Formats: sequence, C-alpha cells, structure tokens
Amino acid sequence: MSSSLLPFFQPKGVVVIGASTSPEKLGYGVARNLIQSGYRGAIHFVSQKSGELFDRPLYTNLTDVPDPVDLAILIVPTQVTPQTIEDCGKRGIKAAIIVSAGFREVGADGASLEQQCANIARKHGVRLLGPNCIGKLDTHLPLDTTFLQPPMPAQGGIGFISHSGAFAAAIVDWARGQGFGFSQIVSLGNQADVNETDVLPEVANDPHTKVIVLYMESVSDGAKFVQAASEVTKHKPVIALKVGRFEAGQKAAASHTGALAGSEAAFDAAFIKAGILRADTAEQMLDWARALENCPLPRGRGMAILTNAGGPGVIAADSLETNGLLLSQLAESTLKNLSANLPPSASVHNPVDMLASASPETYAACLKILLEDENVDGVMVILPPPPMFKTEEVAKKLIDVIGKFDKPVVIALMGSTLVEEARQVFQLTNVPTYPFPERAASALGALARQAEILNRRPQTAGHIVHRPLSTVEEYGIQTIPIKLARDENEAVMLATELGFPVVMKIASPDILHKSDIGGVILNVKSAEEARSAYALLIQRAQKAVPHARIEGVHVQRQIPDGQEVIIGAVRDPLFGPLMMFGSGGIEVEGLKDVAFALAPLNQAGAREMIRNTWAGRKLKGFRSINPVDEESVIDVLVKLSYLAFEHPEVEEIEINPLRVLEKGAVAVDVRVKLRA
Amino acid sequence: MSSSLLPFFQPKGVVVIGASTSPEKLGYGVARNLIQSGYRGAIHFVSQKSGELFDRPLYTNLTDVPDPVDLAILIVPTQVTPQTIEDCGKRGIKAAIIVSAGFREVGADGASLEQQCANIARKHGVRLLGPNCIGKLDTHLPLDTTFLQPPMPAQGGIGFISHSGAFAAAIVDWARGQGFGFSQIVSLGNQADVNETDVLPEVANDPHTKVIVLYMESVSDGAKFVQAASEVTKHKPVIALKVGRFEAGQKAAASHTGALAGSEAAFDAAFIKAGILRADTAEQMLDWARALENCPLPRGRGMAILTNAGGPGVIAADSLETNGLLLSQLAESTLKNLSANLPPSASVHNPVDMLASASPETYAACLKILLEDENVDGVMVILPPPPMFKTEEVAKKLIDVIGKFDKPVVIALMGSTLVEEARQVFQLTNVPTYPFPERAASALGALARQAEILNRRPQTAGHIVHRPLSTVEEYGIQTIPIKLARDENEAVMLATELGFPVVMKIASPDILHKSDIGGVILNVKSAEEARSAYALLIQRAQKAVPHARIEGVHVQRQIPDGQEVIIGAVRDPLFGPLMMFGSGGIEVEGLKDVAFALAPLNQAGAREMIRNTWAGRKLKGFRSINPVDEESVIDVLVKLSYLAFEHPEVEEIEINPLRVLEKGAVAVDVRVKLRA
Repeated sequence: MSSSLLPFFQPKGVVVIGASTSPEKLGYGVARNLIQSGYRGAIHFVSQKSGELFDRPLYTNLTDVPDPVDLAILIVPTQVTPQTIEDCGKRGIKAAIIVSAGFREVGADGASLEQQCANIARKHGVRLLGPNCIGKLDTHLPLDTTFLQPPMPAQGGIGFISHSGAFAAAIVDWARGQGFGFSQIVSLGNQADVNETDVLPEVANDPHTKVIVLYMESVSDGAKFVQAASEVTKHKPVIALKVGRFEAGQKAAASHTGALAGSEAAFDAAFIKAGILRADTAEQMLDWARALENCPLPRGRGMAILTNAGGPGVIAADSLETNGLLLSQLAESTLKNLSANLPPSASVHNPVDMLASASPETYAACLKILLEDENVDGVMVILPPPPMFKTEEVAKKLIDVIGKFDKPVVIALMGSTLVEEARQVFQLTNVPTYPFPERAASALGALARQAEILNRRPQTAGHIVHRPLSTVEEYGIQTIPIKLARDENEAVMLATELGFPVVMKIASPDILHKSDIGGVILNVKSAEEARSAYALLIQRAQKAVPHARIEGVHVQRQIPDGQEVIIGAVRDPLFGPLMMFGSGGIEVEGLKDVAFALAPLNQAGAREMIRNTWAGRKLKGFRSINPVDEESVIDVLVKLSYLAFEHPEVEEIEINPLRVLEKGAVAVDVRVKLRA
Repeated sequence: MSSSLLPFFQPKGVVVIGASTSPEKLGYGVARNLIQSGYRGAIHFVSQKSGELFDRPLYTNLTDVPDPVDLAILIVPTQVTPQTIEDCGKRGIKAAIIVSAGFREVGADGASLEQQCANIARKHGVRLLGPNCIGKLDTHLPLDTTFLQPPMPAQGGIGFISHSGAFAAAIVDWARGQGFGFSQIVSLGNQADVNETDVLPEVANDPHTKVIVLYMESVSDGAKFVQAASEVTKHKPVIALKVGRFEAGQKAAASHTGALAGSEAAFDAAFIKAGILRADTAEQMLDWARALENCPLPRGRGMAILTNAGGPGVIAADSLETNGLLLSQLAESTLKNLSANLPPSASVHNPVDMLASASPETYAACLKILLEDENVDGVMVILPPPPMFKTEEVAKKLIDVIGKFDKPVVIALMGSTLVEEARQVFQLTNVPTYPFPERAASALGALARQAEILNRRPQTAGHIVHRPLSTVEEYGIQTIPIKLARDENEAVMLATELGFPVVMKIASPDILHKSDIGGVILNVKSAEEARSAYALLIQRAQKAVPHARIEGVHVQRQIPDGQEVIIGAVRDPLFGPLMMFGSGGIEVEGLKDVAFALAPLNQAGAREMIRNTWAGRKLKGFRSINPVDEESVIDVLVKLSYLAFEHPEVEEIEINPLRVLEKGAVAVDVRVKLRA
C-alpha cells in the first residue's frame, strides 16, 4: 500500500466537513452512511453551525476536531474548497475526498479552481480523491463515505473503480436487485490528484477483492496504467468497460498505420498488453465479474452443456462457439456412464440432453460424470423450471457436486418467479447464475480468456535509448540497397554491381507517384536494357512533369515475388508506440485487415497479431498462394517494435510493403516521420 | 384465417383426452389450465377411468363427448396416439394438439409412429399441432392448453411462436419477472403437420398481437416461409431468433460462392428479404419486442439522449452508434430552450446532460423540447435514481410528455430496488424500460430498422421458366467471346478476327490451373506473336502434364484493366438461389469480403449488397484506384439473380471474375454447375 493513500483505504478517523442536519442535504447523507456503515474508527463532523448530529458534536472549526483523524470528506461550496484543503493540511489530515461538484466539468473557471485545489494539496502533502465524486465504500472494513441511499451494498468480492459516480450508484442498486455484492467501490470523479492507476493496485491489494471492474472514460497516463495493470492482472482479474469510443476525432496521419490507428485500437492493444478483459457492455462486465469472482479457471476451452431440454441446449451450443469456446468431445467412458443414468431417448453426446423428466439426482449424477471427464474444462448447466420437480431441489443437488471439482460451472437459470428460490440457493454458495444461456456462455468465455492471460509468457520490456535512429537495418531489418545513378553509365555500373534483374525508378523530389507517369521499370535484365531504361525514364519524367528537378535514376536489385504485408508503428498519445500488421498494398485502409498491439512485442505477441489477420494467415499458403517465411515476419515485427519503443522521436514508421519471400523478408520501402 | 386452423385459434369446444385426477400428471395440468384460463367455450374431459374432474364428468369414450367440440388435446401414451387421432377424425374433431413426446425426437421408431399419425390425420382431415409440444395459449380469448405452472402469462401484445416448448416455458416465466405479457404463444414441437409458416399469418391476424417473436431451429419450406413472412411484415413486425448456427456441416462446393454460402448466410438473406429482424440472443429478441409492441416507429436514425449524469450518457452515445443510429444535431431553438430550463453548467448539446439536480419537471420539460425538434427521431431517457427526487415522480412526469408525441421514447431505467416503483409506472403506460443504456439503444436500433423495412420498395418476383439455360448472354450479361484454335494458323486467324491484343490459354480438360504451368499468355499483340504463343503453350502443357489431352488453345480478346469482382449464385436447399457479391480473385474465401441476398434481386437489393462490401465500395474509386461503372455491376447482379431464379436446374453459377470497366462490365469466366 502506498502510504499516502492508506487513509483512503484504512482511515483511523474520518471527519465530514459540511455535515448537515437537514436530511435532504448531501452533508447529512454522508454523515448517515458513515455511521450506518459500522465504520469502527473515529467519526467527526464539522459544520457552519454548532450543535449535534447522530449523537455527535458538530464542530464549527476543523482545528477543534480531536485525534484520531486522517481522512476528510468535503461537502462544502465549490469556492470554499481550496481553503478547506489548506485547513486540512494544517490540521495534519493528509487525505481528502471532495464530493462537491462545479469544477473542471463546468468549464474554465471551474478548471482553474480545481487546479488551485491540486496546488494547495500538493503544497501541504494532501492526497485528493475527486472532486465531483461519490467517494469510497468498503463493505468488509466497513466504511461508507458516499451519500448513496442505504442500505450499503452487500459484501462481495468485486472491487469497482469508476470514473462516473452516477454509473457506480446505478450499478450498486442494480447489483442489489440481482443479489450480488461488492468488496470496494471507488468513485474517482475529476481526478485532480488520485487517478485510476493509483487506485488499481490498492484495490487489488484488498484481500476481499477477488476481481476488479473498471469503468473508464479515459486514462491519465497510458504507459503507467499498462505497467500497473500488468502487475495486478498477474494475481487478480481486471475487467474494463471503456466508454467514449466514438468521441475520438481523427488525426491527420502520414501513413496507413496512422490513418487506421484510432484511440480505440490503442485502448484495445493496451488492455491486451495489460491482461485486462475488455467488456462491451455494463451488463457483460458484471456477468463476467461474477464468474471470475466465484469460479475456478478452466484449463482449456472445451466445455460441456448439461440440459433438460433441446432448445436451450442448441442456444447454448451456438453461444459457446460465439464466445470462442468448444463443445468438448466426451470420452467413451463418459458416454457409457451417462447412458447408464439416462433414459434411452436422452442424448448423451454434448450438449447432453437428459430430457424434461430429469430429476435433481439425475442432474447431479450427470454433472459429476461430465466434470470427471478429462476433456471437459467447464460446464454450463441449463436449468429451466423442470416440469416435475422444484428448481431449488435441483440447485441443492448440483451445488454438492460443483464444490467437489476444481472446474468452473455456471448455471443458465432460465425463468424468473419459478426459479427465484433456486437462484438464492446458488447465490448462497457462490455459484453464478444467468437468465439466458448466451450470458452464461459469455461468462465461461471470460473465464477461459482469463486463464489464457495467466498462461502468457511475460514480455520483456525494452529500454529507451538516447541516440538518433539511422536506419531500420540497425535493428536487423533487411532492406534493398537503393543506389542513385546520375547518368546512363553509372546506371549500367550500379545495375551490374547489384546483379540483374534490377528495378529502375526515376529520382525526383517533385515526382511522388512514380508509377503513374511510367517512372518505374521492372525486370531490367542486362547492361543494354539498363542503359535504355535510364534514357526512357528521364524522357518520361521530363515530359510528364516539365519543371521537375531530376536527380537521376534509382537502381535496386529486383527481389523475387512473394507476399506483401505492411508493418508499421505510430506513437499513440496515451500509450506510446502502437504496432500495426496488415494486408499490403493500397487496399489496406479499405479492407481494414489489420491488427494492433503495443510495443515492444515478443515473439508470441507478434505471432498473435499475424494470426488475427487474413494477410497473416495466408503467409502459410492458401489454395494456389505459395507459403512464405512467416517467422521472418514475426522477426521484423518484433524488431520494428523495439525500434519504435526505443526511439521516442519516431512519430510514425511504416514498412510498406514488406516483401515476404520463401526464405526471409525484405523491407521494400520504409517511411519515417520524426517528431517535429 | 385458414379455416382448417380456426379450431386452434378460436375453438368452440375443447376436449382433453388423457385428463387425469392426479395433480402430478400432465393430463391434470392441462385440464386445470384450461379451466383456470377462463376459456368461455365448452370444456370436456376424456379419461380411461370414469369419474369427475373440476366438476365435470370424465368420459371414457370420445364418442360420448357432447357438442360443441372441435379441438382435442392429446396426452395419451405414444403408441395410442395414432388410434386416438383416428377417433378424433371419426368424432368430427378436425384439430388436435399432441402434447405427448416419444416420436421423431427419439429415433427411427418414433419417426415412423409420427408419420403414421400424420397419415391418419390427413386421411380424416385432422390438423395436428405437435407432437412433443406444450400447445397453445391466448391471453385475450382466453385459452390455455398448456400444462405450464399457473398463473397464465399477463396479457400483452407479443405473439410468440416457438419450435422449443422448454424455451417458451422459460421465457414465459422470465417475462413474468420482468413484468410484461404475451398475446399468444404457440409451441410447434415436431411439426408433423402444422409448421411455423402455417402459424405465422394466423398469429399476425390476431388483433391483440402487435409484434411476433419467432424461436426457430429450422424452417420447413424456405421459399413458402419467406413469402408468408413477407406478407406479415408489411403489417406487423417479426423478430426471429434462429439457433443451430454452428450445426450445419460444410458441403462440397464447386465455386467460391458455394464454399462461402453456409446455411446461416441463407437464413440471414431470407430474413432480410422477408423483412424479419434477426436477433442475436433471446434477451435481445424480447428487448426489441417490447419496443416494437409499444413505441411508434422513428422517421429516421437521429436520436437524442437525455440524462442526468455524464457517464451513462457516454455509454448511451457509444451504444447508439454501435446500433447504427446517429446522435441528432439539435436545432438552435432547441439549444436555446434547453438552456432556459437548465443550470449554466449543464450540457445542452446531445447527449443532453441536465446534471444530477434535474427535477421531475426538468426531465419532462427537456424531453418535450427534444421531441419537438424536427431533427430528433426518437429519445433515450437515462434515469438512474436521482439523488434528490423519487424516480417514480420523474416517471409520472415523463409519461405525460411521451403520450403527446408520435416519436419513440425508451427509458434506460438504471438500478433495481430504487427504481422498481418507476418501472411499474412506465409499465402501466406501456413505455419500455431497460436496465442499461446499451439495451435501450439496441431497442431503438430495432425500431429504426423496422421503419426502414416498411419503407423498402417491394421486389417483383421472377417466374420459373422451363427451358434449358444456354448462356448468361441470354440474360444480357456481356461475356468475352472465346474461340478454340486447333493449330497455329487457326490461332493467327482467330486472333486477327477478334482484334489484338488477345489472351491465349491452353485448352485441355486435364489442366485446371492453367496459370500454374504457364498456360496463359497475356497481351499477344500481333499475328507473329500469336503464332509463337501457340507453339509455346502446347510445348509447356506437354512438358508439365505429359499425358494431358490437349484440344488446342483458347483465344480471347484482351479487355482493358479495371476492377475485378465475383458474382455468383448457389441454390440453397431451404431458400433457393442465394446470390453472392464480393472481392474478386483467389482471396475471396480468405477475406470473406462478400455479401449475400436471396434471388431475385431488384436494383435496390443489388445496390445494398454492393455497399456492404469493400469490393463494392471501391467501385466508386479509392485513393489511386480509379472509379469504374458501378451501375453495370448492379445490372449484372440483378440479371444473374433472375437467371438463377428462373432456372431451377442451375445448382451453382459464378462469374469470376467480372471485369468492371470505366463503362460496362464483362464476365471473363463463367462456371455453371447444373443439378445432377
């Protein structure tokens, strides 16, 4: 625990500054919650008017508040906030939660006031949470500094960090209705000081927190966030809901990589690098969290479905595959054991359909058989109200089995009033339930991905070097030597030296699209051809662009055919260098057959990018397309990622195309844009 | 109403055959529900033992049952079912619901018994629903022939047709928990006779049914289904959840079109053609249904968001765009009016953030201002529990406004216990609520798509012709004449006749991949070149495939460069000819840049296919790729769709590539596979 944040998490005494005796005021709500939460430290109130509140004195002056007190909650008028922070500093209170709004979120005046708060806090060594936040909540300590309507959320293992107070408040109430709880809730507000990166490791350190959910609208320091989160996710799963997807404007870009790399691609890449699961919706985030809180992780992606009805089983099978999971092939012994427990017209193949007559005992016996199968990494049990039995009886039998295995089991508990008692039975024993098979499958998918995150080989980070970049060859990336011939004789000499066949291109700063004016001649095979090609190129250039400055003709060795791909890097303002891999050629922007990842990359990371694109998959060959050297592409990706990582002055760099040959790969053209 | 189905929908009298006095038996549940439903027609019971049930006599013989009786519900042992159907026929009962299971779903013996039932029913003119179904339910008539646990679902406007009885049962209970109801529920079971296509128009005819949801595992007759559904969707929205997506095996295919067109592509195309909205999940299907049941349709895709908190507003904005909707640009007068109603630090731009202090009156005033804006086609109101007011007070103020406008308003009612009363207020006035903005946005998206479905221009259907297909030219599709030269002289003659430059290709039934062996020579410019090309091709072919039968050399006029696309059709076993449009070249299967639609196509349908692919979008030009004749591609798509539609003997046909020129398009290669 960073010692300066300790008072937010384990305060010895709390003072509410702006406590109120009027029940409709926030200053009343905060005081009430603090008392009702059962917080065991000292509780003090400061108000403009003296008196009493909840049997405690209302001090009119912070200096009168007795020890211990190390955390202040400020619900004071916006204008008074800077002075109040100063008072806290002088009183020796080094942590303050600013609930008040009216700062940065309302415009320039507010922003300047917020800056003033931050400056004063820094001067006095006071850490700030907020402003414009609902504070902090710990169900286990317990501590509740919010003004949310009671009761406090139920105890649970989900730690929730939120940029939005309103969202946190709504989720708390929703979770109450769904019957699950939280360990911690931290509302960050405007983040004048403490931000998501500061708080994440602290929440992860809480032994009651099993999984962390993160509602993010932005990130304060991308690189620090990725680093901090990478450490956390080694031990605890983190799920992020990142919103504001469609707000990012497009920047002018000098390369395809730049044009395609929006801020969302960088966030995606950052979450992957940090081992964070990115949820698409709030509901999904919480569905995943409940599974990660309560289930062991699967060893693989093979899942079994146990159902008492065909229809929901088919839905479940569909949605397992939608979530990247597989239907386990059941072992022969499993099929035999299932048959022994089921009527002849049941289906013992996965999805296992026990038929509507399945009793609680049958459910339990079949689940046990499935969990004993080596090929089964996890099970979805589908439980609509059985026509002949009480759903809660099935639930009771199932939980006995679930507890005996170290494999995840999630329940698609379909229905509402008829399954309510069963839902409570499962909830008491921490077995996650979902109203539909699709949501249960999505949760199993999150478990499988989390298992894979933990199995990833760590990437060794590069280090920033402070020498200017000369060429990509410095990083071992092969290019084609390109030589300038200033007359016909020199062209012949260079071509002979490089070895035929060669490619010859007009060299002029005024002619950008050379092939458009016939300024490129391929497959020049002899000295004689080189001589006439030189003459022809000069002639074409002069004709097409009369006043062009012509430096001569570039001569390159012609390399064999192969496959062409693009590899690039662009410096994301939040996360640093973002690598791109994708289809070569002009169509890259149209097809969007590209993958992104943060630099630096290791072999595994590069391989994953390649596999995520068609351009990458076809490197191994497809129909009449011959296979080429995939490993050399991985090599270039890793090397270019180090180049981008180690040279902060590189704004964009793109190899377009990288020609991939049967053996090796050659950067045909490299463009670099350095920071201005 | 098809008269033979009338007894299922409006029976004059119902007999339960297999009624039971034992409460744990299905025959008891059906009798109980029939009585409790409040059905106003005659109710009779037949049982093996005489006696009484619910104050009615138990007849031991069907012939003793008095009139009126026109619908029988059979809960008798599987083996006895055929005889019982025969008894019904003889007694003049022309409609029977077979609840019993143990037929086709359990194997060959059951299938043969089911066939026997169907045969006997046909002989006696008895229509069958089931077997293996839970029957039929009408909350308004009322009528309940199911054995589902009481109470009957609430009255509502959603008609539900399901291939799975268990799924229907679970959904009924789930809906009860969510507080919404149904008009009709029809469980189809094994569909020995009556199927989804028969039932769909009948449910649509029910005046209480505002929207139909369809849980499908298959389709009985694809073409008939599309035709029937197309009629229904002109008047009432239909939402389908089609499952079994991953079950369809891959067939061997003779073309790219065949390889890419799985049965899901055909279902997608069929739903589009029929004007059916396809849902991805059960929850989505019901979320959409509640919006379509209760909201007017929007005139466009521009939506406004009204919120009292920033975070949920950002989530909402993201998810509107995810669902293909737009954030409306608010009119100047709207901004002014909003400003007059809101504090200065509120955001009057869309999403409109009124801040946490927003009162019920503010909510209502701002909603009214938004709905008055011409640019706003619909509104999502975000309503987390307001810190200072009761949520239900906001709800009451909002519904007054909502009722005054003919625009859709959906509520993201975030939370659970604190918003429960508000949920009931909205429910009573038929305003759909969703617990998260993402789900509310998805519902608005369905409303917008439904509006667009109603605005589509109808496609005129083709007619099947009974003459053999000679060439695609017959349909006005331009091809390149291809001539066979059997010696060098003939090659020179044909090339001269066609006009230089020409393309020459080896002609041999034993050489499929001509270019692999150098069997194609492009850009043959003169008689001399034609002569040597002929010799070279023969020589290469003989060397590469020594025993190949060589017919000579094909000579074609060489056409100018342009863009290449693939257009194909494959006969889907369920839905008939399925058109494909996509990227040309060998990579079509890897890139999957393809769109599908059912034949026949009109101009609008063809244009939409083109717009849904990158290959289509770049026809208009992109960067240095020159624009080509998009209209000619539309023309070819429409014409080929008629060819495929009118010639049932064509199993697969593919133009690969279609070379699209500055003016016109030419089929370079056409492959046809006729039905064996």
